[in-house]
Formats: sequence, structure tokens, C-alpha cells
Amino acid sequence: MGMYGGGRDGFIGAIHRRAALMDSSIELVCGCFSYDAEISRMSAADYFVAQERVYATYEEMISCEAKLPEGERMDFIAIVTPNHLHFGPAKMALEAGFDVIMDKPITRSLEEALELREILYRTGRTLALTHTYTGYPAVKEMREQIAGGAIGKVRKIFVNYIQGWLHERVELIDGSNAGWRTDPSRSGKGGAMGDIGIHALNLAEYATGLKCVELCADLKATLAGRVLDDDGAALLRFDNGATGILTATQIATGEENDLSIRIYGERGGFKWRQEEPNTLIKLHPDRPAEYIRTGNGYMGFRAKCNTRTPGGHPEGFIEAFANIYRNFAATLSARIYGETVKPEWLDFPGIEEGVRGMQFIESTVESSAQGKWINWIEK
Amino acid sequence: MGMYGGGRDGFIGAIHRRAALMDSSIELVCGCFSYDAEISRMSAADYFVAQERVYATYEEMISCEAKLPEGERMDFIAIVTPNHLHFGPAKMALEAGFDVIMDKPITRSLEEALELREILYRTGRTLALTHTYTGYPAVKEMREQIAGGAIGKVRKIFVNYIQGWLHERVELIDGSNAGWRTDPSRSGKGGAMGDIGIHALNLAEYATGLKCVELCADLKATLAGRVLDDDGAALLRFDNGATGILTATQIATGEENDLSIRIYGERGGFKWRQEEPNTLIKLHPDRPAEYIRTGNGYMGFRAKCNTRTPGGHPEGFIEAFANIYRNFAATLSARIYGETVKPEWLDFPGIEEGVRGMQFIESTVESSAQGKWINWIEK
Amino acid sequence: MGMYGGGRDGFIGAIHRRAALMDSSIELVCGCFSYDAEISRMSAADYFVAQERVYATYEEMISCEAKLPEGERMDFIAIVTPNHLHFGPAKMALEAGFDVIMDKPITRSLEEALELREILYRTGRTLALTHTYTGYPAVKEMREQIAGGAIGKVRKIFVNYIQGWLHERVELIDGSNAGWRTDPSRSGKGGAMGDIGIHALNLAEYATGLKCVELCADLKATLAGRVLDDDGAALLRFDNGATGILTATQIATGEENDLSIRIYGERGGFKWRQEEPNTLIKLHPDRPAEYIRTGNGYMGFRAKCNTRTPGGHPEGFIEAFANIYRNFAATLSARIYGETVKPEWLDFPGIEEGVRGMQFIESTVESSAQGKWINWIEK
Amino acid sequence: MGMYGGGRDGFIGAIHRRAALMDSSIELVCGCFSYDAEISRMSAADYFVAQERVYATYEEMISCEAKLPEGERMDFIAIVTPNHLHFGPAKMALEAGFDVIMDKPITRSLEEALELREILYRTGRTLALTHTYTGYPAVKEMREQIAGGAIGKVRKIFVNYIQGWLHERVELIDGSNAGWRTDPSRSGKGGAMGDIGIHALNLAEYATGLKCVELCADLKATLAGRVLDDDGAALLRFDNGATGILTATQIATGEENDLSIRIYGERGGFKWRQEEPNTLIKLHPDRPAEYIRTGNGYMGFRAKCNTRTPGGHPEGFIEAFANIYRNFAATLSARIYGETVKPEWLDFPGIEEGVRGMQFIESTVESSAQGKWINWIEK
Repeated sequence: MGMYGGGRDGFIGAIHRRAALMDSSIELVCGCFSYDAEISRMSAADYFVAQERVYATYEEMISCEAKLPEGERMDFIAIVTPNHLHFGPAKMALEAGFDVIMDKPITRSLEEALELREILYRTGRTLALTHTYTGYPAVKEMREQIAGGAIGKVRKIFVNYIQGWLHERVELIDGSNAGWRTDPSRSGKGGAMGDIGIHALNLAEYATGLKCVELCADLKATLAGRVLDDDGAALLRFDNGATGILTATQIATGEENDLSIRIYGERGGFKWRQEEPNTLIKLHPDRPAEYIRTGNGYMGFRAKCNTRTPGGHPEGFIEAFANIYRNFAATLSARIYGETVKPEWLDFPGIEEGVRGMQFIESTVESSAQGKWINWIEK
Repeated sequence: MGMYGGGRDGFIGAIHRRAALMDSSIELVCGCFSYDAEISRMSAADYFVAQERVYATYEEMISCEAKLPEGERMDFIAIVTPNHLHFGPAKMALEAGFDVIMDKPITRSLEEALELREILYRTGRTLALTHTYTGYPAVKEMREQIAGGAIGKVRKIFVNYIQGWLHERVELIDGSNAGWRTDPSRSGKGGAMGDIGIHALNLAEYATGLKCVELCADLKATLAGRVLDDDGAALLRFDNGATGILTATQIATGEENDLSIRIYGERGGFKWRQEEPNTLIKLHPDRPAEYIRTGNGYMGFRAKCNTRTPGGHPEGFIEAFANIYRNFAATLSARIYGETVKPEWLDFPGIEEGVRGMQFIESTVESSAQGKWINWIEK
Repeated sequence: MGMYGGGRDGFIGAIHRRAALMDSSIELVCGCFSYDAEISRMSAADYFVAQERVYATYEEMISCEAKLPEGERMDFIAIVTPNHLHFGPAKMALEAGFDVIMDKPITRSLEEALELREILYRTGRTLALTHTYTGYPAVKEMREQIAGGAIGKVRKIFVNYIQGWLHERVELIDGSNAGWRTDPSRSGKGGAMGDIGIHALNLAEYATGLKCVELCADLKATLAGRVLDDDGAALLRFDNGATGILTATQIATGEENDLSIRIYGERGGFKWRQEEPNTLIKLHPDRPAEYIRTGNGYMGFRAKCNTRTPGGHPEGFIEAFANIYRNFAATLSARIYGETVKPEWLDFPGIEEGVRGMQFIESTVESSAQGKWINWIEK
Repeated sequence: MGMYGGGRDGFIGAIHRRAALMDSSIELVCGCFSYDAEISRMSAADYFVAQERVYATYEEMISCEAKLPEGERMDFIAIVTPNHLHFGPAKMALEAGFDVIMDKPITRSLEEALELREILYRTGRTLALTHTYTGYPAVKEMREQIAGGAIGKVRKIFVNYIQGWLHERVELIDGSNAGWRTDPSRSGKGGAMGDIGIHALNLAEYATGLKCVELCADLKATLAGRVLDDDGAALLRFDNGATGILTATQIATGEENDLSIRIYGERGGFKWRQEEPNTLIKLHPDRPAEYIRTGNGYMGFRAKCNTRTPGGHPEGFIEAFANIYRNFAATLSARIYGETVKPEWLDFPGIEEGVRGMQFIESTVESSAQGKWINWIEK
């Protein structure tokens, strides 16, 4: 693995690195960790990466690595930079024959996303997108049970992503992660909707297997001086007739990272909260709710494939992230060694989820501006 | 107190009766407990009400009681019947000089509500509406703190009322409470929105002191054969610029009575869930959340006025209900004995909340039908 | 009902009164509410009790009431005074032909309790003891399920009663409830063990149907100046071979009224916490824990007999208390009217639980003083 | 790092490996992963360890590695085998000049532990013991706050470790982890007390900074056929006069890994549960409880040193484990490179905790057998 971004002190880069390394299935061999060469070099030293494989730009990294012999060069690139620095390296890496794992949203615009999809199809490489939250075993259990008919036809979905860190203008503080996120030239059209709303959408669609087809959104730049939405919600309609509500706010003062989902069907329901990720509540119409806990023998196959500890030994965010890396790596490894790719390894988000996220961002912005419902299936 | 409705085996009538009697400040002296004379008589026996003060109709009750000497006749009437049986007895009671306490929604239509308001103003009587949930001490604490500026200007409100009991067509079962609730001729224009959505609205407006001015709703009769909404949501905008989301669903299979609210301001937030009513969570931007618990010495004045037990001795739904009765009774008692009515006794919902609820029902129905935002302040 | 104690501003008296009146099955007709005649008179006015039936002493109350005609005189006396004022009025009332409901511990000493038992047997009256916590429907459900074999043979019991209100010497504050509780001349030999430890014991024995036979206790008067224990614990052994731990502390700074129990058997377990009394957790060895919630259709018969609201409409401490009063009143009423007493009405604590509590207090004090195990079955 | 034990499919070995590798500060270079040479070889392949550094015995590993040049040979050994296989390799490694990190309990007997302490002192190496639970940042916060006087003098400690996996005789199943744990020849004198009771003791002493000096225990082999305790409890007295209760049971059917602690002082209290490790509850006598959450800016220095994610991004068991490895590795690294060892790196359990654990096991066994209190400070 080579990394683009992820220098010391970055938040998400460190998560990517830990997630990648935890399972002894991936080695970090090169990187362009920062636009600041000094930081990049120091980061490499921290990470046991040889200084000769620290590169100044992604272009340099990809072209140099491509010249190395097979087995020595990086197998894939992890792109962990801000949104406006996704498309370029992803395109170049794919065209140079590398696989790609990258942070969300996939690109800065829908247009870029669609182009990347074409490139991916053309090159036949593999692309993973780190929608972390669907990496949790409890979410996979929910998906597997719903797919198996456990709650009957889904009728109602609530998915809320509630954060508080933008309740003040932290983007005015130098070095804040909020800087690029609140800047349309780097972030794209979506603020909170683009940063976390697409996680919520991905969670809802992954868990239920449904697709949202219509929405009516209300976005707002709550704090004076902001251009992009820092708060928003959308009424949803799904392809099976179910309705839903999606919230993405970053101005809920005092909240940390409260992503939650509630799904109700004809014969039962599920509830899950990311901040207590090892518990999945299953509701029944005529008997007590069950508190399903990860790591137990009664869990389904998919959850078990993505669990490292027995019940009561909590797993968390890094492990959820690591599931995406592990499944991605297992898929690549099988391909490299000519083995069969098992279906459970293919369980990671990719280009379709990426395109869908961009469609969602643009649709919510448009719906909110017009104050009306949008059918976005044809986007 | 005289009761209209509330015969044995009814759910809400029994709650009203217990709530009224718990504090030794109200006596049940007469009633028309059921349209079935036999049930009405047996109920009276259960309740220690003299058989000669059991009446066949509300008209009979009001006219007979009005003829009794002051001090002997009932002081007020409690109306605990389905919606279509609210307006008639309330009107007649007010005009006969009785005060009224009644269940929500105040009437079957906005038109009736507006007329009742005129009658009330004209007669100068007192009217209380049992929006139970704002009777909880934790809710009063939240209101008092927000009014005092504890979280700064309110920016965001989530209020969800999630039930599951209509996930099947229980209205087809004889004697079900769902019968009249799903029947527009008895219930009015609103289904879930009218039954529980107005509780959610009342809670949001009471807690924050704000008024909702615009909304965009999506209502649905989910189960085939239903005419009224059994599920719905609305995007909200408030008079101070805050935004919100309100949900009212009765098809969330497996849920009981999950009313909850989350309010976020510039400097903090509050969270409360009716199913665990004695805990109020207060969020801060820069220090740990506080779990405020009813019955403790640190609670504010209004919460204390509405609490009966010390911390850790849980109070519940009946006590919240009883707070409305007690405050209403204290107000009447002061008026009867020529004492000053203390502001804390006037802390119960009344005609304005009633009219507002009817406006809300009609606005959500209209917005949903048209698929667009409605400014309902002028209604 | 006549009351001994319970004047305005008292905590537990007001709970008794509300509990008694909530269900319209008991009327408060007389009382000696306070040793202060003025307070007693004012309390009577508050409670709608005629001034001519306010008495100066319990002796006066019992002798005067006994002379009133049947049907007019009180049917029973509620004794809600400190421990040293339990035995006298209870003895006199029983001997005068009245039934008795009284607060715990039943007397100030085991000797008094044993004597009271003899009097009760001799007079043939009915006596109820307000061990409130076994009045909760969730506790009754637990008992019914365990009795039915739901978790197999019970192996382990944890019961903890953790309060914080005596973390300072509040007994030095005039008028504090702590005054008599920390004074052996009024409270008896037990401090925290006598005040709350016996609730914990009662809960453990009621829920499991087992009897504790051996214990090894460690009691402590933590705060300088205290004579009685304000903190203690005991290792327990039960008659079926199960082991347990019981805690009773009042110096756990910041805690309110955290009584909880956990019971484990061969095939499952139960967990319940008084501060969230409507949820009962049932554990299984091989499938998810169930969250049993009061008020639902799936609850057992005993729980249903002691529930007033549907699921999600929380009941609390006053309702648990009221269950004891209601069952006691139903038993008396049946006897008075010559009806059959139903088994579910007899579901209230009485003399045996009272004697057992006193044995427990004395045994824990003795075990702690000697630093060894005590077999207390023969006490 | 070299590993002794930890072949594929082992539970705790995989945790050790992930914990060691997560932070890019440790490399796995050799091992004797299993007594089965084939499994050992396959494990090495899984872990990217060269086959020539897979050893048949720990003796071979230590002697061969010792002959490799500095910088190439392993720096330390991780011992992750059953208890009876701790002392031998630890002794040999220390004497060969290697540092040691090992699973708990440190040895099979107190005698071995005392001898190991002497060897450690003599060789001057570093030894870490993986008492995982004190690796959690919330526990470190609790320790730091208590040391700083946040709750005043500690008066009461409850520490409970409640598991259910031995509710049946799983040790009869081939390959179960329970096999050696229930076998005194491999496990030592303690069953549940040795396996998990010492974690509870370590947690209580680490969090409070106190030492337990007296105890009165009751241990039991609940299931027929067992020799070692599978359930037990102890009354505790600490060196500052505080009292406590410690529980260690593995027969609580349906429980997973419910380690919890509650600490009460003069001016406040703390509560923490391992199954929701990112929340630390702080109690106050006169204001609401605070819910302290890891990853927030308000956390203290020690917690921050041991946290990888921002608030709301849950960390878990593997991260707690990794904190021990990281602090141990930072200490070794500083020593190797001649840098100053920072106090925060020395924050890991070692030989003293190991000896103390063995004293505790033997004291509880002895106290239980004799049915009396034991002063174990002089052991």
C-alpha cells in the first residue's frame, strides 16, 4: 500500500493506517504523506517507510512505483486527502494499473464521479470507498437479517447523523479540519450533506437493500459567514414505497458523532447507534425487544466475518474501518494469486456507492434551493 | 369534578381519574361515563360516585348539575371522549358556567376550535387541555432553562413521536381504541398527526418558547384500507429562524410510546425521552454532558412545583397527567376563594395550544397533499 | 383508612396517601398526622379529613374510632411513623380489631416483631408491610417467570441498594429525615441495613422464592460521629445452595436510590434497576437478551394485575406503592363483603417479611461484629 | 517482537498481535506460535514472519535470537500462553537479555511470581503485564482525577467482573479455552478469581491508587465436576480505610464480559463499565452527574496519551490492549536510543501488579477455605 495524504497529526490518515495494518494483511511501503516535504519525510520515519519511497507528489509516486518490479511496487494506493484531491490521483492510479481505496465523498462533483466510474470500468481495477459505518458487524447483521425477511417489507427508515463540532466557526482556526470542509472550492457543493449526509444515505441503503428515489430537502448555512450547509434534513421515499427521514447536522452543540438508524418493517424493526456500535436492537410486535450483541455465537455469517473479538470485548471505529481494508485486501490478494474471490470479501463500498453519494449531494442542494420534491433516480 | 366519558375499561378515562384524585385536591362527584347506561352505573359504583348523579347524556349532566347549589354541584367537567364528542359538551359546559378540562385534540376541526375559543373568551371560564407530556417536570426544567438562556438562541429541534400499535389493522378488532382514531368522521382530518403529532408540536413549542411558522409535510396512510395518515413527518421552520423535524408515526412495529425531543442552541443542547422521563440530558460544547434527574435539590422552581418524590424514586405518566389537573385545580380554587392565582399554577395547556394543534393538523394535511412548504402562521 | 403520621411536608406519608387514594378504592377518614396538633389539623384540612376525626394520639384515634359504628369507622390504620412508633399503634390497632398497613422495618427490634406476630395470629387480622419495591410489575414478572422455571435453578444473586444522601452528616440539620434514622433509640440496631438493606433482602427473596440461610457481613459507620452503620455488605448463601452478595450503602456520594438486582440461573438470568423500573432484562445463554417492558400484552398475569398503563407510559414509585395498598384493600374488601380473596390480591408483604427483616438486621450486625459467617435460619 | 504462543485461531494471541501492530511501533519478527509445528509455520505465513525464524520451542527461540546481531534480533518476547507456560520462558528471556510482555496472571503460583521478580530486579530488564482493562483511557482519566482529589478521600469501591461462559461445562468440549483455565495443573490455584478476579483487583487499585489490605472471600466451584472456583466474591478493606466488594463469576448465564467499577469518595463518585468503555460517569453530591466521554478536548493528559480517535468514534478492547504495547514499546525504544523515558510511557502494569495478583488469588482461596478475614498485606 502507498498512501496519498495521511501525514502525522492528520485525523483520518492515522485511522486509515491503523485500519490497514491491524490485520497483518497489508504493508505500508510508500507514500506522499503531505504537501510539506519535511512532514512527509518525518511521517515516513514514524511509519517505518523507507525514505527513498517518500514522494513529493502523487504523480511522482504513481509513476515511480509503476516502474518498480511486480511484488515490490505498491499494490494499491490509499487516497486520504480532502475532496478536491481525490479525482486526480484516483484517475492516474487506475490508469497506471493500481487499485484504489479512497475516502468519501468519492470526488468533488458528480461529473468527476461519473468520469471516474468510466475509467474504473475501462481499466478493470478494484476501487473501495471508506464508508466506515457500514463496516460495523452490527450493521452487517442488520442487512443480512433484513435481506432474509426478518422484519418483512421495510416501511419506514429514520437515519440521523448529528454532530456538534461546527456549532462555532472553527474553520477560522488555522489548521482546523473544518477549513476545507466549509470551502466549496475544496469540498464541493455539499457541506454537512457531503461530509456526513452521504454516510447516512449509505447506511440506510446498505442496511435495507433499498434505493432512495425521491427526496425533499431543507439545507441551511446556519452560522453567518458560511457558504455551505452545516445543517440539513430530507424527507425520503424509497423504491419499495417506504418513507424515511435523513438528517445531517454539524451544529448540534455538544454532540460528538451520533449516527443512528431505525428501520421498521411489517413484522419488526431494528435500531442501531454508532456511538454504541456493538449493540443492535431488534423489535418485535408481540414479544420483547432483543439486544443483539456483536461477538456472540448467534450472530450471522456476515457479522462474524467482520468481527475480531468475542462478545463483551468492544470493537470500535478503527475495527469497522479495518473491515473495509481487510475485505478489499482479501479481494486483491485473491485476484493476485488467482484464487476465487469469496462473496464475503466483496462486502465493501465502491464506485456505485460513490456515484450515488454525489447524486445525493447534488439532489439535496437542488431540492432545498427549489423547496420541492425531486425524483433523483434518473440522475 | 364531573366526567364525560371514562367508563370502566377505558384507557384514558382511568388515567384522567387517577391523575385527578392522586393529590387530594379534586373529588369526583358526578358523571356520564358511557353511552351504555349500565356501564355508566357500574363505573359510578367503582368510583364511589352516587348513582343519582350518574347521567345519561352530557346535556343532562350539565343542565342538572347547573341547578344544584353552589358548593354542591360539580366545579368543572372533564371531557375524555373521542374527538367528535369534544366540542358539544365543552361549549355547553362553558356556557352553563362550568370550567372545562379536556383531552386533545381540542375538537374535530379547526373551525370548531376557533368557535370554542370565542365561547371561552366570551364566558371568561378556564379551559385546560391534557397535553400530558409537557406536564413532566423534566420538560418544565428544560423550558425554564432555555427561557433563561442556558443554551443561547435555539437553532435546531428534533421531535419524534414513534409508536407501533397501528402496524397492523387493529381498528378492525371490535372495541379497539383504534376504531375511532382511524375514522375521519370521529377523529377529524388527522390520523397519527392528530393523535400524536400535536403532542410533539406542543412539546417542541412549550420547551423552546418558539412558534413554528412554516412546514413541509409528508403524510401517508401506509396500511391498505386506511384513510387517515398512520405515518408522517414534517420539516419545520420556527419564528426565530431555527429549523426542525417532527415525526409522528404509529406503524413503527415494536415501538411503544417513544416521544423524544432534542434541542440545540448556540451554547448547548437538551435531550429528553418520555419513556425515561426522569432524566434530562444537557449538552455542553466544551465539557461533559450533564444528566439532570428529577427530584433533586438542584432542579429549578417550575420542575420542583411539579414533582412529588425525591431523586431516584421514579415518577411517570400518571404524575405528569396529575400535574395538569393539580395546576388547573389550584387555579380554579384560587378563583373560587378569591385568592391570587400564582403563575406556576397557570402552567397548563389551554385554548391557544388547542387551536394551534388544529392548525397544525390541517396544515400538515394540506402541505402533504400539495408537496410543498406552507406558511401557517396566518391560519 | 386512618393515618398515624403523614403530616404535611413528610416524605413517606405523602407517598402513602397518594398510593392509597390513586385507585379510588380507599378513603382517608381520620388521622393523627403529627405530634404537633396544629400541623395535624392543617394536614387534615389539606386532605379533606373532617376536623372532628383528627386525633392527638394513636391511642385516642384507635379507641375513638373503635366506638364508631361499623361502616363509619376506619377500616384499617396506616402507620407511617419512625420505627420506634410502629409496635405500639400496631399492637393496639390489631387488638382493637383493626387491620394494619405499616412502613418498614416492622418494628424497632426483633423481639417486638416476634411479639407482633403472635398478636396478629391471635387476632386474625390482616397486616401489610410496605416493602415498596416488590410492588413493581417488573419484579412480579421476574418472580412469576423464575417460579415457572424460566432460568432453571437459581445459582447467583446480586442485590445492591446504593444511596448517597448520608455522605454528609445531614442528620445534624434540623428536621432532616436522617435524624431518627441515625439514632439507635428510634431506629433500632440497624442503620443503612435496617433502612434499605431489608428492602434488598426482601427483593432478593421475593423475586427468587428462596430464603437466605447464612451470611457474612461487614458494616461500618463511615462518618465520624455516627453510631449506626451507614454502609455495609454481606455475602449470602441461600437455601437451595445459591450464593449472593447484598449491599446497602447510604454514603455513595451522588447516588439517588439505586436499588438493583441481578439473578442468574442454570439457563438464564434477570436484571432489574429500580430507577428505570419499567424495563426487565432477561438473559439467555445462546440468544440475545430480551428487554421486557411493563404494560405490554406479553407480560404475565401477576405483572398485569399490578399495571395501570400501556407500554411506554411509565409507571413509577407511587404506582408500586399503590399496588400494595390496592391488593391489601382488595383483600380486606373481600373479607368484609364475604367474597373469596383472590390469590393475586394476597400479593403483598406482611408479618413474615417483617420478622425476616428484623432477623436480617440483627444477624448482619452480629456477623459484622464477630467477623464471621452466621447461620440465621434458626433465629 | 517475538511471540510465544498466539497461533492462528487462538483468541488472546490474535489480540496481542493486533494490539502490537496497530500503531506502527512494533514489528513481529519471529515466534514459536504453537506446539504443533505445522500450525506454527502456517501462522508465521499469515503474519508475514519469515519461516527461518519460526521456532519449535521457546528455548530454541530465545537462544537462537540471542545469537543474532543487535538490531536484527527480536527486542522483546510476548508470552501469550496458558499460565503454566509463563514462568519458564519469562525467566529464560530475561536472563538472555530480552524484555518481556506477558499475559496475566503472571505465573501459576505466588512462589514463581516472587522468583520472577527477583530475576527481573537482577537482570534490570523491563516487564509488562497485559492487564488490559487499565489500558482504557476512561480508566486513566478516573485515576488521574481521583489522584488529583476530584472526589476527596475514597470511601467505597464496588468492582464486579461478571461473565457467563462457564455456566455450562464447556471445558469438556475439545479445544475450548476453558480446558486449561479449569485445570489446576495448568491454571494454578485460582479459577475465576485467577482468570478475571485479578483484573478486577488491578482495576480497583489502579483507579484509586489504594491497596487492598484485608479481605473475606467466598469462592465456589458451582458446577459439579469442577475443582477450581467458577464464582466468588470478597469483602475488601483498603489501606486508607475504604471498604469494597469484589466479584468474579463466570457462571452468570447470558453475561458476556461485564467488568464494572463504582468508586465513591467524600465529594463525588465515578462509574465505569467495560462493555461501554468510552463513557465515564462522574457523580456529584449537589449537581447533575457528568458523562465524560473519551476523545474530547476536556479529557486529562493521561487519557489523551492513550486515545486514537476523536469523541464519538468508539475505541475498544484492542485499542486498550494496544495502549499497553505502545507504552511498553515507547519505554524500550527510549532506553535503546538513550532517550529519556517519559512518565506517561511507564503507564503499564508490571511485576508488582503481577505479584499482587498472585497474592490475591492465594489469599482469596485461603480466606474462603477458612471462612474468615485475612490480612494479606504481609504476604
